Amino acid sequence: MHSTMPDTPLTIARILRYGTTVHASSRVSTWNGTGFDSRSYAEVGERAARLAHALRDRLGVRPGTRVGSEQGVVGTLMWNNTRHLELFVAVPAMGAVLHTLNWRMPADQLLYTIGHAGDEVIIVDAGLTESLAPVLARLPETVRHIIVAGHGGREALSGFTGEVHDYEELISDHPGDYPWEERLDERAAATICYTTGTTGKPKGVVYSHRSIFLHCLQVLSPSHYDMSPHDTLFPIASMFHVIGWGIPHTAFFTGADLLLPDRFTKAESLARMIDKGRPTFSAAVPTVWSSLLEELDTRTYDTESLRRAYVGGSACPPALMAAYRDRHSIELLHGWGMTETMGLVSAAVPPRGADADEEWAYRVSQGRFPPSVEFRLVGPDGALVPCDGVATGELQLRGPEVTCAYHGGDEAAWVRPAENFTADGWLRTGDVGAITANGYLRLTDRVKDVIKSGGEFISSVGLENTLMEHSAVIEAAVIAVPDDRWGERPLATVSLRHNGIDPAELRDFLAERLDAWMVPERWAVLPAVPKTSVGKYDKRAIRDQYVQGLLPIVRLGRHRGGHPALKQ
Amino acid sequence: MHSTMPDTPLTIARILRYGTTVHASSRVSTWNGTGFDSRSYAEVGERAARLAHALRDRLGVRPGTRVGSEQGVVGTLMWNNTRHLELFVAVPAMGAVLHTLNWRMPADQLLYTIGHAGDEVIIVDAGLTESLAPVLARLPETVRHIIVAGHGGREALSGFTGEVHDYEELISDHPGDYPWEERLDERAAATICYTTGTTGKPKGVVYSHRSIFLHCLQVLSPSHYDMSPHDTLFPIASMFHVIGWGIPHTAFFTGADLLLPDRFTKAESLARMIDKGRPTFSAAVPTVWSSLLEELDTRTYDTESLRRAYVGGSACPPALMAAYRDRHSIELLHGWGMTETMGLVSAAVPPRGADADEEWAYRVSQGRFPPSVEFRLVGPDGALVPCDGVATGELQLRGPEVTCAYHGGDEAAWVRPAENFTADGWLRTGDVGAITANGYLRLTDRVKDVIKSGGEFISSVGLENTLMEHSAVIEAAVIAVPDDRWGERPLATVSLRHNGIDPAELRDFLAERLDAWMVPERWAVLPAVPKTSVGKYDKRAIRDQYVQGLLPIVRLGRHRGGHPALKQ
Repeated sequence: MHSTMPDTPLTIARILRYGTTVHASSRVSTWNGTGFDSRSYAEVGERAARLAHALRDRLGVRPGTRVGSEQGVVGTLMWNNTRHLELFVAVPAMGAVLHTLNWRMPADQLLYTIGHAGDEVIIVDAGLTESLAPVLARLPETVRHIIVAGHGGREALSGFTGEVHDYEELISDHPGDYPWEERLDERAAATICYTTGTTGKPKGVVYSHRSIFLHCLQVLSPSHYDMSPHDTLFPIASMFHVIGWGIPHTAFFTGADLLLPDRFTKAESLARMIDKGRPTFSAAVPTVWSSLLEELDTRTYDTESLRRAYVGGSACPPALMAAYRDRHSIELLHGWGMTETMGLVSAAVPPRGADADEEWAYRVSQGRFPPSVEFRLVGPDGALVPCDGVATGELQLRGPEVTCAYHGGDEAAWVRPAENFTADGWLRTGDVGAITANGYLRLTDRVKDVIKSGGEFISSVGLENTLMEHSAVIEAAVIAVPDDRWGERPLATVSLRHNGIDPAELRDFLAERLDAWMVPERWAVLPAVPKTSVGKYDKRAIRDQYVQGLLPIVRLGRHRGGHPALKQ
Repeated sequence: MHSTMPDTPLTIARILRYGTTVHASSRVSTWNGTGFDSRSYAEVGERAARLAHALRDRLGVRPGTRVGSEQGVVGTLMWNNTRHLELFVAVPAMGAVLHTLNWRMPADQLLYTIGHAGDEVIIVDAGLTESLAPVLARLPETVRHIIVAGHGGREALSGFTGEVHDYEELISDHPGDYPWEERLDERAAATICYTTGTTGKPKGVVYSHRSIFLHCLQVLSPSHYDMSPHDTLFPIASMFHVIGWGIPHTAFFTGADLLLPDRFTKAESLARMIDKGRPTFSAAVPTVWSSLLEELDTRTYDTESLRRAYVGGSACPPALMAAYRDRHSIELLHGWGMTETMGLVSAAVPPRGADADEEWAYRVSQGRFPPSVEFRLVGPDGALVPCDGVATGELQLRGPEVTCAYHGGDEAAWVRPAENFTADGWLRTGDVGAITANGYLRLTDRVKDVIKSGGEFISSVGLENTLMEHSAVIEAAVIAVPDDRWGERPLATVSLRHNGIDPAELRDFLAERLDAWMVPERWAVLPAVPKTSVGKYDKRAIRDQYVQGLLPIVRLGRHRGGHPALKQ
């Protein structure tokens, strides 16, 4: 039998048309340091059209509508702001590919991603031209145009041999409507994001129109972000990161208002934006929530509008979530995702019927996956691990929002390294955890961060979360270090709220809450724990510093309490 | 560039696996006359597996995984109950096609749909075998098996020449797991529903796995049904109708509990189910809500759990919505859909910032379409009508949830009649209305019910809604009848709550609220207004009765007030 339903494609052109008509009066507002500059979605659509004309007609960016067809690639080196939103909808909707560049990447990696993706045009915020300056002389020939958004910053681009344009000037002379490619193949490339992995070269994940459309539908569900036209979304997480955790496109999809922080990402600025902009939902990595908490605890702001906020990117310490709930009546919604999984694919919305303790256990888990995403846990021996909430294994995923390859650059359409993908098409996430029978993920480690001490595993995330419960601890990252007797032992690095705290006090604090054999002997108190370009703890950097003898190690005696291996 | 995201198909097999694992403890409960019989989704999954084995291995129902491949067709003639839910997931997930038969259809039409769809097996509730009896002798040879669900009813099947099975016996000997067809093409046929149009033969709409999966994602959004695992859904609308308005599959998708009324569809039974089962959401046609209102107004029930309920299938009188809101604190969520649009595609969730009056105007509209559905209004001359909230035209739709053809039976894969589809692939809905700039639909008529009086249009829905505001009116349906002077004039048929009301009183009631020239002169008070097999007013039947002189017409003098044509 033949279905009688059409193959109408799921595209960003459809999202753009819907958002700019049905939700024409919804607004995007960008912070300017003292207040918000605001535009309607109808205006965003009109400017997106001018931009698409300029890219295609003036700069020669080629649209493509088929899978694998030649498509122009447009790089953005931008903060979270209205112009970046215009690019998020305009570039894919015209059939080109949006490449969100990571301005926190080291110059060599940034240059690599520009060349690997094949960027032809780079659009840079005026305040970020300095990030581009170190690579200008080495830019590949494909890069023919740089467009500067905003005032100033031109002098840093003097070494560029191609054309430099002003964003507003460039788009001003073009018509405010555009024949968006509604009929393009939903499997065509829409955006490309590079991983910020701490090992090896960045790897490009190419999202399709279909995957973005489905992701929007999944995340606005009441089981996930729970977004409606009644919301005002305040994404603090960088728009370049995992294409903004799906929030920019979802806002257009559902007609929610957007507040964007631009370059003002310090805690005090963010607190003022919440006070003035009255968002109903926000999203950021744990380290941002941690510094914002300090600010909200110190000064008085009106945060009443904000009752829910998403925290992801790395595991959030439960103590941080509890502080927001108890002191500010803000529920941090915990979740998980990575560049490879198309935004944040899990969300810790508790199930029905959980009592208060159970509810909390669900809230601090990484949450549940949507119906389209298949999950499994695999042990070191390659055998499946049961989803019983206890047994741990590497998380592997498969589904329309989970990449099954990386962009191949000039050499191949795509590559599929065995260390990242199984032969039967599952993504090896590199994260280790347990999953309950009803689907809630609890991460305990990265595969590479697992601490195997005397044949038993110690969860670095478990140690970090417990350390974060201590009122003096601002940051905590635990790594494995070699140990003559036990094979490996944990080393704890912390940054502290005030001096006068002794590692021995933290050791005793842990010993009261955990089995004594898990408690680290090695400690390093740092001004700040090293972080990656997207704000995660950089455990590779900590390991390197340890190996090079650069960490100020304090070594304490082992706490009493037998190791399981000794009890047998 | 190539996307690196896989083409993982969106299938009912995925929904089934997700619902029976992640939501294993969610429950479906069917009313037995005094209480609920309940099963977990895990048990439903196990029974679905036994059923799939029985259908494939014992009865020879062929699975197919490709578009247009040979697939077994399984008909169901069933109420809303747990076994019907098992069939909803099992049959498509095994790669066969589910055909939900309409037991309210006239026997000839029922027979036609069985033959046209090519049913091989029919599963019938024991209490519905009488509906099958009149067609047994004429069943096509393709129908080889009848499976009876529940006790009794066998004697009515004595004329059947194929095999008759007992549902429980048939599935008992098979294993409780099944290799569900996860890798089937998402564009393959999953279910077929026939229209219950009042003209011509029923027309078959074949839903694909993709369209059902997308519909689930769309309707659970906060802009639509707003469903989560915390909900208990009580679908009163027949599961055979437009595949249960998407609710059975969406429940599995999101892990909401289900309450099902089985054969107990009288208002008193429904009220008791709400009282005992504590649903958070329900869905039914206006005539059901109307009769239930009488019951809730008369006796005392605990309806506190039910704060939201969907009303669709035909336009709901605002007076009925106001009565639920004012007297029972239940918000009826108005929407629209048809067999051709894959369940209920619009929902009247008001936008942000509406004041109380505006909010009500939005609530009584037919609501907004989801992002994937394109809409337009077309005038009688074929020209586009602006979406300004005032101008009316025929509603035309296009999108992945909107059929672009009808099932062709033995003769063709599909047919695409010009009266139902435009040359450029839009569905002509046959409904007439206006759409606001922000996308809210307000229906005024069916194309065939439009009343053109002296060159001006009178909205039959407008007259019906105003009549329903009168406390004595239970039902109201208005049709156009020929008139020597004006071309056409409205004829109002009503059923009344008590006697002693005079049509003249209703005429005066209308005249106080509408332009006098719109008020009907012709009235018929009936014990009940004729309805179709799915509870809509059957205007074709009313017109036939009028032409044959069977209606008890009262003719009143015209009310004062000039027709616009006379004013010029």
